[in-house]
Amino acid sequence: MSVLVAIADRDNSKLVAQLQARLPDIVIEQYSQCTDFSNVEFVLAWYAPKELWAKLPNLKVVSSFGAGVDSIDLDLLPAHVEVVRIVDTQLEIDMAEYVLTHVLAQKLQLNMFYQQQAARQWKPKRVLSHNRVAILGFGQLGRACAQKLIANGFNVSAWAQSHKDLTDVTMYYGEAGLNDMLPNSDYLVCLLPLTKHTTGIINKELLAKLPAHAVLINAARGQHVVEADLLHALDNDTLRAATLDAFDQEPLPSDHPYWQHAKITVTPHCAALSDVNCVIEQIEVSIQCLANGTALKNRVDRTKGY
Amino acid sequence: MSVLVAIADRDNSKLVAQLQARLPDIVIEQYSQCTDFSNVEFVLAWYAPKELWAKLPNLKVVSSFGAGVDSIDLDLLPAHVEVVRIVDTQLEIDMAEYVLTHVLAQKLQLNMFYQQQAARQWKPKRVLSHNRVAILGFGQLGRACAQKLIANGFNVSAWAQSHKDLTDVTMYYGEAGLNDMLPNSDYLVCLLPLTKHTTGIINKELLAKLPAHAVLINAARGQHVVEADLLHALDNDTLRAATLDAFDQEPLPSDHPYWQHAKITVTPHCAALSDVNCVIEQIEVSIQCLANGTALKNRVDRTKGY
Repeated sequence: MSVLVAIADRDNSKLVAQLQARLPDIVIEQYSQCTDFSNVEFVLAWYAPKELWAKLPNLKVVSSFGAGVDSIDLDLLPAHVEVVRIVDTQLEIDMAEYVLTHVLAQKLQLNMFYQQQAARQWKPKRVLSHNRVAILGFGQLGRACAQKLIANGFNVSAWAQSHKDLTDVTMYYGEAGLNDMLPNSDYLVCLLPLTKHTTGIINKELLAKLPAHAVLINAARGQHVVEADLLHALDNDTLRAATLDAFDQEPLPSDHPYWQHAKITVTPHCAALSDVNCVIEQIEVSIQCLANGTALKNRVDRTKGY
Repeated sequence: MSVLVAIADRDNSKLVAQLQARLPDIVIEQYSQCTDFSNVEFVLAWYAPKELWAKLPNLKVVSSFGAGVDSIDLDLLPAHVEVVRIVDTQLEIDMAEYVLTHVLAQKLQLNMFYQQQAARQWKPKRVLSHNRVAILGFGQLGRACAQKLIANGFNVSAWAQSHKDLTDVTMYYGEAGLNDMLPNSDYLVCLLPLTKHTTGIINKELLAKLPAHAVLINAARGQHVVEADLLHALDNDTLRAATLDAFDQEPLPSDHPYWQHAKITVTPHCAALSDVNCVIEQIEVSIQCLANGTALKNRVDRTKGY
């Protein structure tokens, strides 16, 4: 058996060397250098070429190189192939700190004060009293964010796919639940996985259900947001502001209207960055599980896509 | 007895009317309209004219219009005059939120990301691991900030005048304590009262004892900071950044170098704004205490100046 590294737009030679040092008895190859595809049983993938999957008759496991699996075309994989993902507890800690910081930054209107400073304007303003945060997606990241927000006095609600129990969080489910939650939200934090059901979920219909003073914080994927609808809501004062860490195209193109929009805070997809050592360790464990025939950790439910 | 309102640079007619409505039996006058100074026993003061005090033979109580009494020339008051100040619990809540928000904003380098956004630059950066916050001044505001920072995982130390006990805060006292604390601080938060001992305390000697990656957050008074020394430290990379809410001259003059300094975040003295109803209520209580001969609340120790 061999392991194939198929991670797009990145020099993977150091990663391959690190994995090889940990697993000296296993053949680890990059996609561009692979000579025998029939030997490949494990693929480490991130935006791998679509044509790859049909070349691998003995594929058994695909590991995402990150927490999400939206970079993998799940529909192109044979049904028996297992998909695993990276679960990094530091990611939860960093994401919760990012979300708290940006909710507070919007509550204290830091973006406005930075702009007024650049214009040498002295305009004291009282802090906003908005206190209700709604979280879309309530997996590990969502729960970590909820706990941190609650510890800081925010009222937190969350919208989840399946029933979740967490003291102090008001849970909502399904389309009806979403419709009930949105009008009572001052901040809407998107932490959804990207699936066919959640692509474009933040569109004009959803935004219209938020109060006009609401703020969107998207720390998930750019494809969750219909960009034109978001810009329309901000420009028509039906949404107060947005903090965006993820974009349809990354890096965000230099002519994109988000960059110099007064109501948008852009961060360059760095809310929670994986620690490469933690990632390598988990990939090593997954490869060993496959080699030893033991149960894989952090398996993805392919029907749900997360 | 009469009450004199001597608050500079502000239209006080509404304030006088509100106090008068609450205290219909007491004469309440503005300084500019006062006809009989000999009747004045109580002054509500904020940057009152220096010559006022010598005109008041029967002065008994001076109330500051804010939490600090640095706007009152304590040395010009006869020894028997009592000085009281405003204590607003909402101020503590707001100040703790301001300090947490700006410590987090500096940890996540929001100012840098706002500047990069304005320049259409995509440069992902990992969050800084700095975690140690030192607080100068450990009264009500300092304690509220410490508790909020601790709840968010920061290591907090504090420098106080007199012995304080608070679990989880490492306390330092005196000049030797300050020298021990500063080199172990990633963020230095100034919440000191302004007295002759604390004026100019944040000068080149103090700044030189901080690590070069440290950040100053001043939410007390502009006069605590020697501006030229702060600018010198920032421009010579011996201090990473500063967040300033208070200034020697307010509003900050439009030609001041702080406005467009890349390492300085300016907020227009709005970290914690008094709620006027809470202030009026406390002034009413103080006037009634004087009229009834009962003990005043929130008395200031005139030898300490706070």
